[in-house]
Amino acid sequence: MSRIVMKFGGTSMAGIERIRSVALRVKREVDAGNQVAVVVSAMAGETDRLVNFCREASSLYDPKEYDVVVSAGEQITSGLLAIALQAVGVPARSWMGWQLPIRTSDGHASARIGEIDTTALNESLARGEVAVIPGFQGVATGERVTTLGRGGSDTSAVAIAAAMQADRCDIYTDVDGVYTTDPRIVPRARKLKRVTYEEMLELASVGAKVLQTRSVGLAMKEKVRVQVLSSFTDADAPMADTLPGTMIVGEDELGQEDIDVERQLITGIAHDKNEAKITLTSVPDKPGSVGAIFTPLAQANINVDMIVQNVAHSTGSTDVTFTVPGADLARSLEVLGNAQGEIGYAELVHDTRVAKISVVGVGMRSHAGVAATMFETLGARSINIQAITTSEIKVSVLIEEDYTELAVRVLHTAYGLDSEDAA
Amino acid sequence: MSRIVMKFGGTSMAGIERIRSVALRVKREVDAGNQVAVVVSAMAGETDRLVNFCREASSLYDPKEYDVVVSAGEQITSGLLAIALQAVGVPARSWMGWQLPIRTSDGHASARIGEIDTTALNESLARGEVAVIPGFQGVATGERVTTLGRGGSDTSAVAIAAAMQADRCDIYTDVDGVYTTDPRIVPRARKLKRVTYEEMLELASVGAKVLQTRSVGLAMKEKVRVQVLSSFTDADAPMADTLPGTMIVGEDELGQEDIDVERQLITGIAHDKNEAKITLTSVPDKPGSVGAIFTPLAQANINVDMIVQNVAHSTGSTDVTFTVPGADLARSLEVLGNAQGEIGYAELVHDTRVAKISVVGVGMRSHAGVAATMFETLGARSINIQAITTSEIKVSVLIEEDYTELAVRVLHTAYGLDSEDAA
Repeated sequence: MSRIVMKFGGTSMAGIERIRSVALRVKREVDAGNQVAVVVSAMAGETDRLVNFCREASSLYDPKEYDVVVSAGEQITSGLLAIALQAVGVPARSWMGWQLPIRTSDGHASARIGEIDTTALNESLARGEVAVIPGFQGVATGERVTTLGRGGSDTSAVAIAAAMQADRCDIYTDVDGVYTTDPRIVPRARKLKRVTYEEMLELASVGAKVLQTRSVGLAMKEKVRVQVLSSFTDADAPMADTLPGTMIVGEDELGQEDIDVERQLITGIAHDKNEAKITLTSVPDKPGSVGAIFTPLAQANINVDMIVQNVAHSTGSTDVTFTVPGADLARSLEVLGNAQGEIGYAELVHDTRVAKISVVGVGMRSHAGVAATMFETLGARSINIQAITTSEIKVSVLIEEDYTELAVRVLHTAYGLDSEDAA
Repeated sequence: MSRIVMKFGGTSMAGIERIRSVALRVKREVDAGNQVAVVVSAMAGETDRLVNFCREASSLYDPKEYDVVVSAGEQITSGLLAIALQAVGVPARSWMGWQLPIRTSDGHASARIGEIDTTALNESLARGEVAVIPGFQGVATGERVTTLGRGGSDTSAVAIAAAMQADRCDIYTDVDGVYTTDPRIVPRARKLKRVTYEEMLELASVGAKVLQTRSVGLAMKEKVRVQVLSSFTDADAPMADTLPGTMIVGEDELGQEDIDVERQLITGIAHDKNEAKITLTSVPDKPGSVGAIFTPLAQANINVDMIVQNVAHSTGSTDVTFTVPGADLARSLEVLGNAQGEIGYAELVHDTRVAKISVVGVGMRSHAGVAATMFETLGARSINIQAITTSEIKVSVLIEEDYTELAVRVLHTAYGLDSEDAA
């Protein structure tokens, strides 16, 4: 017997027919002798509908009341899934966040999960009931309902898996696993059997939108084995012995097999078109001028990503280039415009037609030459590199946006990631 | 300062624009110095949507989970109204049934309200906050969510008014009060300033669909002054001195004015086309045969209303006629069909083309002749009376459905209820 958390997203819950097939999938795990808790999202589109009601009611809505409104979406689907499970002969009951309870911080609309009381949950599982738990919600001090912020249901699932010491947390989504890169760009992309938490964090944060980043961080911290599976292809049914999704595991769990035979130096290639590049020209090359740029941005809560400072001109000034999230560009330009006197730059130039390409893999720790291969491969196609950042398990470059697909494809081949069967 | 409960139905909550005007109406009461709790229904149509989801998920749905699903409708509107109130500068917060809590019986999907804990509510009101409370919901033992059955929000409002010892419970609805009869049938129908609980019970249960019957019974028991007002006409604004809806009060609160000058013997005339007439012919006229008819109906939970037993034929048999709710007709026929051997009737005849016309008024207690006036008035128009029932404050007759409007009109005139200004 295993203890399993299964999490289903909004597309899987969109309508009674889909909820019924979710119920059948849960039933298979129950029939295999497992104890199961299911975490559900709201029906696709429902959270948007509820969020819009709040915005219409007031642009400055009270997050405490927003949480009351939007948490209703998952409340509805958890009741419906419990009904659908009972209809196929599986004992089930729903547990709202306040009923378990799932304690969270007071940060309404973006609360963080604290302690989850599993006493009642464990008793229910021991009675052979499936527990259906709305994702995305909890309860704060004063018994007020909270939500975790958009995409929070993945985090709920991982947190519940940790609290109930589940053997596995299966995240059903509309992709069937994590790929070496976006299969829409590279048809020969391969599905990964295993990926480490750290790789997943890098892949998720640079645009492989499979799992919410926060949930991966939590899984890493709590050592929860997370599996990404498709809700739609029946071939991906979570039968006892076949686990054809992608497991997200600790580095120590990568088998010899992963490292020697199948696994390449690089695990995956991500791209992100949502960055914007900002260049300040002729910044005085003296102590304090870089601080004058980045301090006001930090104060405005803007995350600066890649930074390049050119060699100083003979005039004693330099150009400073960096990227910010595209959504923060307008605010960044305003902040920097206000600080022109203090920074003393000549011109403020920006460019949104850029893309960040990242190669990610724990294997690169022990192998030199990963970055060199990247630069050579892109250079051979005359793709100009505008900025570079590296971490222990990632190399990212900024290029002109038009070259995104070409760059991903040639790098995928260069690192030996292409599958032998064309998809 | 008064303590007031205001209740708004689904039409008043249908969309943010309407919720905003509800907020303005609540603000007026607050600005007048009152402590206010607001009880809200779900947006019009939302409860039906949620009920249908449950039915689609399983025709034999678990009422515990049904309650989780359908209670979400009022949860949403209470959060939204709290936001809309804050947006017009009125401090407000929502209180779910489980938060106050509103304790109910375990009868999921048709729970009865037990104790309401007003400790937190009173503190909140004392802080100057408007309490927004979802109608229709509560919490049972084991902290499971319950609902009160359709139309339960009126009952919630009255129960909360009783618990917080409110001076008044204002029910906003899409009519602007209780009329002497349906104004669509009789344009000269008059709005009543005051009606007693007992009259309202009779008027509601025979088809004046202004208030849920259960809520009127509860108001009578708890001596809650209920006022029915329109949510739509601004002329009916609940300003301090003008209360132009209908107050539902105890008989002792009827002023001398009501009794002597304005008030007629008869308060109102109701009609109900949802009854069905059943006749059993040639039932043996012997002890036990009536019991053989009505016992199986009672066991099947069918409410029999008007009963007429004809004088026995010379053959020693009689015809028995009675009415049942139209919705229960098919089931009644089945029950009686199965019992034919035991009852020993010849034929089972039914007719749905009937209507019940009732004249209601506490004044008839002290005046003879009310029934006689009714029979004479209908007789003068050649309207045949098929059955009669009376209570202390009501006389009801069953007639052919086609004569409903005519009967209501002539009775309205006969009892002196016509307004002097044509509407």
